[in-house]
Amino acid sequence: MVRFSSRMDQLKGSEIRELLKLAGDPNVISFAGGLPAREFFPVEGMKKAAMAVMDESGADAMQYSSTEGYPALRQKIAERMKAKNNIDTTADNILITSGSQQGLDFSGRVFLNKGDVVLLESPSYLGAINAFKTCEPRFIEVPTDESGMIMEELEKILAAEKDVKMIYVIPDFQNPTGRTWNLEKRHKFMEIINKYEVPVIEDNPYGELRYRGESMPALKSLDTKGLVIFLGTFSKILAPGYRLGWVCADDEILAKYNFMEQAASLQSSSVSQLETIKFLEMYNLDDHVAKICEVYGKRRDVMMKAMEDYFPEGVSWVYPDGGLFTWVTLPEHMNARELATKCLEKNVAYVPGGSFFPNGGHENTFRMNYSAMPEDKIIEGIKRLGEVIKENM
Amino acid sequence: MVRFSSRMDQLKGSEIRELLKLAGDPNVISFAGGLPAREFFPVEGMKKAAMAVMDESGADAMQYSSTEGYPALRQKIAERMKAKNNIDTTADNILITSGSQQGLDFSGRVFLNKGDVVLLESPSYLGAINAFKTCEPRFIEVPTDESGMIMEELEKILAAEKDVKMIYVIPDFQNPTGRTWNLEKRHKFMEIINKYEVPVIEDNPYGELRYRGESMPALKSLDTKGLVIFLGTFSKILAPGYRLGWVCADDEILAKYNFMEQAASLQSSSVSQLETIKFLEMYNLDDHVAKICEVYGKRRDVMMKAMEDYFPEGVSWVYPDGGLFTWVTLPEHMNARELATKCLEKNVAYVPGGSFFPNGGHENTFRMNYSAMPEDKIIEGIKRLGEVIKENM
Repeated sequence: MVRFSSRMDQLKGSEIRELLKLAGDPNVISFAGGLPAREFFPVEGMKKAAMAVMDESGADAMQYSSTEGYPALRQKIAERMKAKNNIDTTADNILITSGSQQGLDFSGRVFLNKGDVVLLESPSYLGAINAFKTCEPRFIEVPTDESGMIMEELEKILAAEKDVKMIYVIPDFQNPTGRTWNLEKRHKFMEIINKYEVPVIEDNPYGELRYRGESMPALKSLDTKGLVIFLGTFSKILAPGYRLGWVCADDEILAKYNFMEQAASLQSSSVSQLETIKFLEMYNLDDHVAKICEVYGKRRDVMMKAMEDYFPEGVSWVYPDGGLFTWVTLPEHMNARELATKCLEKNVAYVPGGSFFPNGGHENTFRMNYSAMPEDKIIEGIKRLGEVIKENM
Repeated sequence: MVRFSSRMDQLKGSEIRELLKLAGDPNVISFAGGLPAREFFPVEGMKKAAMAVMDESGADAMQYSSTEGYPALRQKIAERMKAKNNIDTTADNILITSGSQQGLDFSGRVFLNKGDVVLLESPSYLGAINAFKTCEPRFIEVPTDESGMIMEELEKILAAEKDVKMIYVIPDFQNPTGRTWNLEKRHKFMEIINKYEVPVIEDNPYGELRYRGESMPALKSLDTKGLVIFLGTFSKILAPGYRLGWVCADDEILAKYNFMEQAASLQSSSVSQLETIKFLEMYNLDDHVAKICEVYGKRRDVMMKAMEDYFPEGVSWVYPDGGLFTWVTLPEHMNARELATKCLEKNVAYVPGGSFFPNGGHENTFRMNYSAMPEDKIIEGIKRLGEVIKENM
């Protein structure tokens, strides 16, 4: 008989991926995915970039290239990280990956043996939890409040647990909650990390998508001991269809990620890389980011207003400063997973919050995306959601 | 202190990837990589396909898509597998991966726990060995002769070992040896596999690249119990730069691969998939394959002739029926790894054969690629190689 590895017992299909399939149905108002607004993709610009690449270096685009990625792309990323995140780095400390998800997968595999402890925010990104599960670690959830991870709790856990091999965090516009760590927490976090010398995966897909308030320094920009591994991606600031992300880390750690990529997929797409380089040469990505920030910021406002208008007393939610998501908490006795089925009957989708807690519970929560739907559909969807919630209260 | 997982002790950078970097130097005559001939890529066709995709469905190309891949691409692959390999399958049994290497990575992770046994041909593909190493298995090499794996040896091992979780084979134009299993071995293999019910990874990147003799049936086409997992790729028949491969397997097994892909990278590039679908609609891929078969067949002949002319007595090599590689055996006392350095001084590169034996040894062998270099460089490179071999005999 065919026997699967024990890691396969941990893995189920992600609910998000299943719900994304529904998002393909034009009748469904989907707040489930984390999709960028497709109507604002710079299609014409990417077409011109693609034509230029095929004319100038078509054979390179179609051939194998190096595991670490094209030097010109890594150079542009290093410059962008300096400009946007005040992170001093070089092209040599950047590894191109097939989306940020691959960076998450490598993170688990580089650090985690079976049974090792990984710390993460409670709740945390479902895709990261799934990636780490393939290494069969023990998850310890660090409690959070509205301004991020609670540092006293983090320190308590680190003092008590000897097998903590890595800490996974999303300090900016967190997935799923939309919350952002305040400055004090960031400094305190680095102080604790420097004391315990545990590697930190700083996942930052949304950092540039801020709609109000001041930028916060990336943990990597405060890192003096080379403990922070920064994951970035073009998925949210340009387009996810090219599958291009990156890892920024110190030499010794990045070399391990590179070995991992050689084993896992050899390299990221040559043609995606060359077309992205060309686009960045031909156009100003900042203009595009500014445009989508305006759109997403408005959609966030519309969703916040609609929730106030249509959600009943007893329901609360996060007002995010940026990113793609907000987080809704129902009264404790309610179950968002059961409610999701009833909402789908009304052609509205969200992701039940329980999936974001690796150790379970919190079934009265759900995650809402506001970037992918136009304003009228946001209002209509929230209205329907509000009705279903009221009926089931 | 930062502590890495135990799997990282197993992984080193692949010599092939390091040698591929040298291949970028135009002064080096490289027989090291497994690169398709860049001068024959259908650049103009892929440019037209890219333009059409961006005009007709640019936003789809830039957006997330499903883990399993575009139905139209999976349909075309299923049809091609029927036409080329006589494999009866459907789009539902195809999963698109980011190159075949990702299929190898998933294979290890779906089946192997630490310490489990994986069987493979001795020697076998370095990239597969590397991928499997991340699961820390025990490798047992099955002895081979000029027509493939020795079935009596395989049966002996299966009778003695209880922890064999999978068997990895490349029956057509094997990497690294260029050898092809004969028909008798294929039938005998399936008989043994059906008896022991062990899953088989049939890696078939080169099957369509035959330059003489009759096609042999794919193991998957002889599979009556759903034990064979077939890995295919566009890398060698179209272009590797798009990173598109596929897994064909029965439902239960393919579902595990799908979960693995969700965790590892979410999906393969949307734009790569749509451009490949469009290319397959606009052009006849068979014409392209016929053209490169003609070119590679000639290059093989030129290399064979040059080896006869310039290699000294005591050196032997494989005359392959297809694929990209031949395999050279030096006298037993010689070391191809040491010799590689001396060859690089003469600007000629190959891959030392020892790397293809997971349990070591066989340092008097090396792998030679003949697809990537034009005929005059093949002759010049073999001449230089012959001189270095003679000097060090």
